[in-house]
Amino acid sequence: SSSSNLIRATLFPGDGIGPEIAESVKQVFTAAEIPIEWEEHFVGTEVDPRTQSFLTWESLESVRRNKVGLKGPMATPIGKGHRSLNLTLRKELNLYANVRPCYSLPGYKTRYDDVNLVTIRENTEGEYSGLEHQVVRGVVESLKIITRQASLRVAEYAFYYAKTHGRERVSAVHKANIMQKTDGLFLKCCREVAEKYPEIKYEEVVIDNCCMMLVKNPTLFDVLVMPNLYGDIISDLCAGLIGGLGLTPSLNIGEGGIALAEAVHGSAPDIAGKNLANPTALLLSAVSMLHHLDLNEKADKIQDAVLKTIAEGRYRTGDLGGTSTTSEFTNAIIDHL
Amino acid sequence: SSSSNLIRATLFPGDGIGPEIAESVKQVFTAAEIPIEWEEHFVGTEVDPRTQSFLTWESLESVRRNKVGLKGPMATPIGKGHRSLNLTLRKELNLYANVRPCYSLPGYKTRYDDVNLVTIRENTEGEYSGLEHQVVRGVVESLKIITRQASLRVAEYAFYYAKTHGRERVSAVHKANIMQKTDGLFLKCCREVAEKYPEIKYEEVVIDNCCMMLVKNPTLFDVLVMPNLYGDIISDLCAGLIGGLGLTPSLNIGEGGIALAEAVHGSAPDIAGKNLANPTALLLSAVSMLHHLDLNEKADKIQDAVLKTIAEGRYRTGDLGGTSTTSEFTNAIIDHL
Ligand SMILES: CC(C)[C@H](C(=O)O)[C@@H](O)C(=O)O
Ligand SMILES: CC(C)[C@H](C(=O)O)[C@@H](O)C(=O)O
Repeated sequence: SSSSNLIRATLFPGDGIGPEIAESVKQVFTAAEIPIEWEEHFVGTEVDPRTQSFLTWESLESVRRNKVGLKGPMATPIGKGHRSLNLTLRKELNLYANVRPCYSLPGYKTRYDDVNLVTIRENTEGEYSGLEHQVVRGVVESLKIITRQASLRVAEYAFYYAKTHGRERVSAVHKANIMQKTDGLFLKCCREVAEKYPEIKYEEVVIDNCCMMLVKNPTLFDVLVMPNLYGDIISDLCAGLIGGLGLTPSLNIGEGGIALAEAVHGSAPDIAGKNLANPTALLLSAVSMLHHLDLNEKADKIQDAVLKTIAEGRYRTGDLGGTSTTSEFTNAIIDHL
Repeated sequence: SSSSNLIRATLFPGDGIGPEIAESVKQVFTAAEIPIEWEEHFVGTEVDPRTQSFLTWESLESVRRNKVGLKGPMATPIGKGHRSLNLTLRKELNLYANVRPCYSLPGYKTRYDDVNLVTIRENTEGEYSGLEHQVVRGVVESLKIITRQASLRVAEYAFYYAKTHGRERVSAVHKANIMQKTDGLFLKCCREVAEKYPEIKYEEVVIDNCCMMLVKNPTLFDVLVMPNLYGDIISDLCAGLIGGLGLTPSLNIGEGGIALAEAVHGSAPDIAGKNLANPTALLLSAVSMLHHLDLNEKADKIQDAVLKTIAEGRYRTGDLGGTSTTSEFTNAIIDHL
């Protein structure tokens, strides 16, 4: 069969609007003749009726085997006692770096022009350790864990990314004036790696100040690397600068060369199944995945078509102020290929 | 002497530009005939030549006795092993809530109009516990501590503030989807207090989403209450929306009715002593102090004069794009009284 020439990639459509926007990606990939064969698995907050599971062993194995995948949104129930699926995937697949390019979309106006930065978030530890307990009644503690291994690993990736993507500067975001030991170790690791990349400028910025600067003038930044929680906060802040999570791609890098691209917006249950969702974030995440596979020409072709469609403004989904359906928007992208 | 009719307030001019901007406040207060007598104490990063100390017992006692004070910036050396003076003051005086009103200044254009919100930050615990240690080589941890007592206390203050300042809504900012126990306890306390204030709307917002919303549309928020680190981050982000820390007042509320107003910007050593500093944040902090003392008319008079001076734009310091000296700007304010 022809599938021998195809790259197999795992697809987790996810919850809510996930299946619709995944459908959009599949259609665009087919139209653009991307040599990818999807291996689709159900992973979501509802129990899979076939497997009676949220997340099967086969789903994880699929990513491990293919080394590349794309995932839609998965709902995170607050305070329901079970760990979010997003986190489970990060832990199980050792997805140690979350990479989010964030650039102003031509023709889509926000308060900011010329945003062009990348946040690289440590994705496995920090405040996300899951270690919490009650000391005595009314006194609880969470452990923030920072390790040399994970900090070096994400710092390495950030500098490697900067170098291979023509970026000039890496800024490490921290609060080492308060957390001298944990964030101090993170900075120490970044400094060590920085020495191996003399061609890339390195600087450090305290998180509160970083947020203020991002809001005042985001063009001051290039590549930002940071511990988990700061990355969670800053990557969403940056998404806000250019229009929101519906527009920003994300790629998770794991040990052993795994890459799982991911739309980081919510599952939008209110509009699920109504053909109203905006597939842009998932499409641009799929583009990141193609870049990761070195299918750069194909990646650019799809990205151009998405950006042109948005820039023209004739077909836009509701979240961008338009009235198009997911299918109309998708067809417009396909017409631009 | 006439001092029997005066309210005694402690003044810590602080480091760097601190003394100059404190001088500006003193002049404006004199001109506005504010019935305050300053009790000035040296607290700063340099050792006081007279007392050979950074922070004397007398300085702390002065605030405890007067119950009200104003402080300028104090430098925080990064990684020098000693705790920052800002933090020492918060701990020693039990300053449990940091209140920062943040509103667009008429005539001073930023990307945002009509910002009008207040951040209320828990100021004593969370990631600021100072509890950190190395578990084994290359693995360090910080403890985030959340207590029922401190959470209730700051939540109480937030709702009390909302009620007494004509505010409609309190939003608790959290990451309880990840830190279910610590941030979960914080939310539980907020909910308990919310029930006692049925006239104030209550809502909860996850910190990453909150930052995105603040950047997209800050008018969505009214009063925000949150644990220490989130407050540190979000209050600076909000300051950025309206022009930066040079323009935003801050008031710390402590146990036993203590209130210490504070300019939260840096000590700007590069321009210290050059008559170039912008005293606005310290002046508006002093205004918060007057409101706290129920000297509302006097407070409004000074605030109006500061805002008018900035709005007219004839006298502005360098940070606001002008060429005025601190004295010229101060005199212009006095002329507007
Ligand atoms: C859903 C939530 C658990 C997740 C996180 O906090 O990491 C999300 O905010 C993200 O950034 O992917
Ligand atoms: C200087 C620093 C220790 C301080 C903090 O982190 O609280 C500052 O950022 C603030 O917000 O007052």
